[in-house]
Amino acid sequence: MAAFSFEKLVVFGVGLIGGSLVRALRERANTGGAREVVGVGRSAASTVRARELGVIDSAVALDDDRALAAALDGADIVLLAAPVAQTRSLLERIAPFLGAATVITDAGSTKADVVEAARAALGARIGQFVPGHPIAGREASGVEAALPDLYVDRNVVLCPLPENTPAALARIADMWRAAGATVHEMAPPQHDRVLASVSHLPHVLAFAYVEQILQSRDAALRFAFASGGFRDFTRIAASSPEMWRDICIANRDALLEEIDSYTAVLVALRTAIESGDGASLEAVFARSRAARADWQLRAARPAAQSGAYNGDPSGGDPSK
Amino acid sequence: MAAFSFEKLVVFGVGLIGGSLVRALRERANTGGAREVVGVGRSAASTVRARELGVIDSAVALDDDRALAAALDGADIVLLAAPVAQTRSLLERIAPFLGAATVITDAGSTKADVVEAARAALGARIGQFVPGHPIAGREASGVEAALPDLYVDRNVVLCPLPENTPAALARIADMWRAAGATVHEMAPPQHDRVLASVSHLPHVLAFAYVEQILQSRDAALRFAFASGGFRDFTRIAASSPEMWRDICIANRDALLEEIDSYTAVLVALRTAIESGDGASLEAVFARSRAARADWQLRAARPAAQSGAYNGDPSGGDPSK
Repeated sequence: MAAFSFEKLVVFGVGLIGGSLVRALRERANTGGAREVVGVGRSAASTVRARELGVIDSAVALDDDRALAAALDGADIVLLAAPVAQTRSLLERIAPFLGAATVITDAGSTKADVVEAARAALGARIGQFVPGHPIAGREASGVEAALPDLYVDRNVVLCPLPENTPAALARIADMWRAAGATVHEMAPPQHDRVLASVSHLPHVLAFAYVEQILQSRDAALRFAFASGGFRDFTRIAASSPEMWRDICIANRDALLEEIDSYTAVLVALRTAIESGDGASLEAVFARSRAARADWQLRAARPAAQSGAYNGDPSGGDPSK
Repeated sequence: MAAFSFEKLVVFGVGLIGGSLVRALRERANTGGAREVVGVGRSAASTVRARELGVIDSAVALDDDRALAAALDGADIVLLAAPVAQTRSLLERIAPFLGAATVITDAGSTKADVVEAARAALGARIGQFVPGHPIAGREASGVEAALPDLYVDRNVVLCPLPENTPAALARIADMWRAAGATVHEMAPPQHDRVLASVSHLPHVLAFAYVEQILQSRDAALRFAFASGGFRDFTRIAASSPEMWRDICIANRDALLEEIDSYTAVLVALRTAIESGDGASLEAVFARSRAARADWQLRAARPAAQSGAYNGDPSGGDPSK
């Protein structure tokens, strides 16, 4: 585990994502002696549990100017781990108290919209903001679900801005590495396209699938005969409706492109089924199965070690 | 476990499905003393492993008239557990040697096409054929993957024909109950519609999804950043291309209806995303999540006990 030193970390939103990072830095990483972690919530109540669990040392309410100023004073790193739709208002709240030596990062699932919000809120100080996205999670949420090893061998994507200094970027990358993650870099549009494909689209497809059953005349009968394949296929339809509403809207353009190219593939399969074109069906199914099997073999290792995208001329190498 | 008595069982295709039934009857059920199980394969070689494992007592090659006649002589039950596309040719092969006291059943994933094939092959003796579908399986295939508890607490759907006698139907139902399954009855079109919805459609959707990634410019990059949600969503894309080709064609009409109503839901979600209609998105996502959570709670119990479709006026009660 990489060494990583900090004096004060301020986390906006101490839930699964923020709480797991703090636990990782405190319990796993070689981060030296006593360090201070301040949690900021919408209200004092929302951070009580995090303090009880010892994840944070002190809690600050977002609307308390004086406490917020004190929390941000001397902070090395500020992590935004609240719902991504709050990014701009949080950064506007932080801006008046932001010291020149502090680096801000976030954990949002989309990046182009976060960069736009950050530019609007931070103006000339945009260089202090390093956009990030840890690709990790679990079905449970809240600080009780936080785990010190949530990021071990998981991918974290950073989307450096031209205004970021190498030192600011290195501080955030080192933090995630100290939590056990593998750090990659991508441009925001590339990040958003990749995540629309491998995460946002399948969520939409799974939600749509359950909705379609619900709209059928005999929904209850159908559910009664659903089994293992259904269970795995629909597991992501158990995700937070609010979060996925926000992601769909935040990443609209990339997601619409994926939906359209997906629909084109589905239409082609439909045509093959209708015309009884078994050869085409088998060819697509066999290609898919082989690709899925290949992915499974590589999935045990994070992208940087697997080399899964090496040699792809258009994809580039996001890990530099 | 229910008691079930038989003298001779002949299994065409001793793989996962047929092998698991035999193991269940031999190892779990109260089926009395020494009973004979004969396996029939395309060639002698294909049944060698089943004999080595003790799943069958003797093996017969499909093209050996004399051995096939001897195998079918005095058989209580014949189970067709070979690929469903072979149903008609297998029944035509069996017909000349079929005794009046033998009941045939099958394990095919579709039923309307199987009934049609059986009527064509058996003619006036169609009453001896009880169409069936055990809704169970695992990713591994072949007789080595056969398990004695594969059918425990799983649903088996029988699609009785008007020509079936109560005794013939009871013999097949008792066999599956002896293996631990819960037996339901449906008309073939109802079976095919329900399975198109909860099994065939999600397979097509998952295959189409992996294919869409493969068609993208940066497929390797995308796969490199796929994680847990992707894994579960695409697990069924690891299924047999040949089997799913056959199922798609065999259940074409019902599957096309499901694809069309699914596409309509996806188009509606696309419109909501494009217009930034967060309320509609959240409503659909919340409905889906609630339905999925409700299903999960019921899924631990087979349909007959869960009452999942009771009170549904259009669905009826397939378990009578």
